[in-house]
Amino acid sequence: MEASLSDVSTPARVADPGEGLSHEELALAARNHGLPLEALRYEVTPAGLHYVLVHYDIPAADADDWRLVVGGRVRTPLTLTPASLAALPAVTRRVTMECAGNGRARLSPRPVSQPWLVEAVGTADWTGVPLRAVLAEAGVERDAVEAVFTGADHGVERGVEQDYRRSLPLPVATGDDPEVLIAYAMNGLPLPPQHGYPLRLVVPGWYGMAHVKWLREITLVDAPFTGFQQSVAYRFRQDPDDPGEPVTRIAPRALMVPPGFPDFMSRVRVVPAGPVRLEGRAWSGYGPVARVEVSADGGGSWSEADLAPPGAHRWAWQAWHGTWTATPGSHTLIARATDAEGRTQPLEQPWNRGGFGNNLVQQVPVLCR
Amino acid sequence: MEASLSDVSTPARVADPGEGLSHEELALAARNHGLPLEALRYEVTPAGLHYVLVHYDIPAADADDWRLVVGGRVRTPLTLTPASLAALPAVTRRVTMECAGNGRARLSPRPVSQPWLVEAVGTADWTGVPLRAVLAEAGVERDAVEAVFTGADHGVERGVEQDYRRSLPLPVATGDDPEVLIAYAMNGLPLPPQHGYPLRLVVPGWYGMAHVKWLREITLVDAPFTGFQQSVAYRFRQDPDDPGEPVTRIAPRALMVPPGFPDFMSRVRVVPAGPVRLEGRAWSGYGPVARVEVSADGGGSWSEADLAPPGAHRWAWQAWHGTWTATPGSHTLIARATDAEGRTQPLEQPWNRGGFGNNLVQQVPVLCR
Repeated sequence: MEASLSDVSTPARVADPGEGLSHEELALAARNHGLPLEALRYEVTPAGLHYVLVHYDIPAADADDWRLVVGGRVRTPLTLTPASLAALPAVTRRVTMECAGNGRARLSPRPVSQPWLVEAVGTADWTGVPLRAVLAEAGVERDAVEAVFTGADHGVERGVEQDYRRSLPLPVATGDDPEVLIAYAMNGLPLPPQHGYPLRLVVPGWYGMAHVKWLREITLVDAPFTGFQQSVAYRFRQDPDDPGEPVTRIAPRALMVPPGFPDFMSRVRVVPAGPVRLEGRAWSGYGPVARVEVSADGGGSWSEADLAPPGAHRWAWQAWHGTWTATPGSHTLIARATDAEGRTQPLEQPWNRGGFGNNLVQQVPVLCR
Repeated sequence: MEASLSDVSTPARVADPGEGLSHEELALAARNHGLPLEALRYEVTPAGLHYVLVHYDIPAADADDWRLVVGGRVRTPLTLTPASLAALPAVTRRVTMECAGNGRARLSPRPVSQPWLVEAVGTADWTGVPLRAVLAEAGVERDAVEAVFTGADHGVERGVEQDYRRSLPLPVATGDDPEVLIAYAMNGLPLPPQHGYPLRLVVPGWYGMAHVKWLREITLVDAPFTGFQQSVAYRFRQDPDDPGEPVTRIAPRALMVPPGFPDFMSRVRVVPAGPVRLEGRAWSGYGPVARVEVSADGGGSWSEADLAPPGAHRWAWQAWHGTWTATPGSHTLIARATDAEGRTQPLEQPWNRGGFGNNLVQQVPVLCR
């Protein structure tokens, strides 16, 4: 019996009409997890509540044995260790991170992959060394155009065996706002295994696929990287033959702490009649959020929420709050963010084949007694 | 318009034949999460990888304001704080915890609830004060038969508004093996929010529903507690009218670290031909595991794994390992635990309406090239 990878690793597909969620999708949902929405109450997400997506396995790793090799189109190849990085001047940045596939499970037809509803987000204080400082130390050759980042997680995806690998254009890799980090700590402690221990990339403003975990190699290249995660996955496309546009920065979004208390199964919220405080967080990977609005009538009318200014943490979410006067009956609350450049959230979902970059407004069903 | 809880909080049910997983079940899977199976490599599960199930919301909590009230049929009611508990002699116990609903999503018909496949488990070092020491301090009245534990998480479930509440028979609550703890630390750090910060119960050997999180009240009662989580939920029953038997201790189970590397979507494992090391953990809520066996032919033949003795941590899982000689083709690996009293794991799943206490053997599909 001949056995090949294509037997177990099939092309990307969208679900048939009415096709229920498979055990494969459920297995991803049980491994990976989102932010329980009440945890939006924390300005900095406790590490175990931050969303996590792992493509393959969390690698076994030991900081004492770990090597990060910087090579390719550099003058001086470097071999760094977590200890040698920790000896360099450190910076800490508060960064909101979101999975590019957030919202995928609500699309119709549904792209078959990690089935997020709306909760694939979190904000942490990441401590590490600016990538540009490391690249300056290595000396980037003039013909380098991109930096390619290799993680230690190994697997097969859509028939392609690979280490997880992504690139950034050189101006992004060496930029100072956002400033890309090689991080070794999350919220003041060593990275947890599922968040990239002992080293990961943090790319403020970009979707999660750019923040390569378990980072073991940085290679400067003189032509754009065309590996699987760059050219096949993480593209906005309408059909399989479309080369598509790359997924990069995070589209604006507001999320609400669901008010009142929940039903266990339906997660519908129960509130008393009268004024109900609504609060949440809003963010955009393009810069500050300028406005958050709330609607209790399906988007027919909106009221503007009080929005905290971006403050010192330019790439972290901003708190917002407002008041809704609840009346007996069933309601659906909606929040919508608009960023400083006018990008906002759709009320009806555009569709793409990978289910990327969705920022459809959150809908929170509430029962008022 | 009259609006009532029964509109949003419906009775327990099982899925229709062919009914796919709903968004409601998926929302629970996205909030709660299992142990990524490769994390079975850790004897003590890092906190963020330990399975977690929250019935309602994770409550906002501050240890400085927290009160634990011990009352009911006691001679001296007590009001304890996390600080007053931390000042008492502490014990640390390594305990394997598993959700009573583990495996539910594979049942047919499927009980509609949190859809675990096989991964709802974890092992932590819990530090706290023995419950029996606290009860001795309060002085249990002679007519007390149970202790009722109330958590701060509030919600509605199957039409019943409630704080999460469970009881233990007095002999269990005051036993010394297993010794029930009021825990304030997990793996040497304060409890994370999702694991019960600032105080929770730990009941070694029992399924997770007994380990009440966000513990704020212990009440000694002179008649068995008949609240929702005791008499309605967490019963083994075949039909809704069956009063059922209570869910208590953890049935034996072995899990395997899936060998080789995975396909992203199917999670099928890929290994080379030749000897493959298999390893994992096994546990039983009734005491030590006596034997772990592995089959590569669907249970037709079994080989016995090397099993670590229970050692100092009587209520924690035991490591096991073995070797399988892989030949090209598709295989399904199975591991099976048998405890010292002869309880073992079924190859075909018995069914109950709540999907509780399942310990069907894990099946790991592997492709050998």
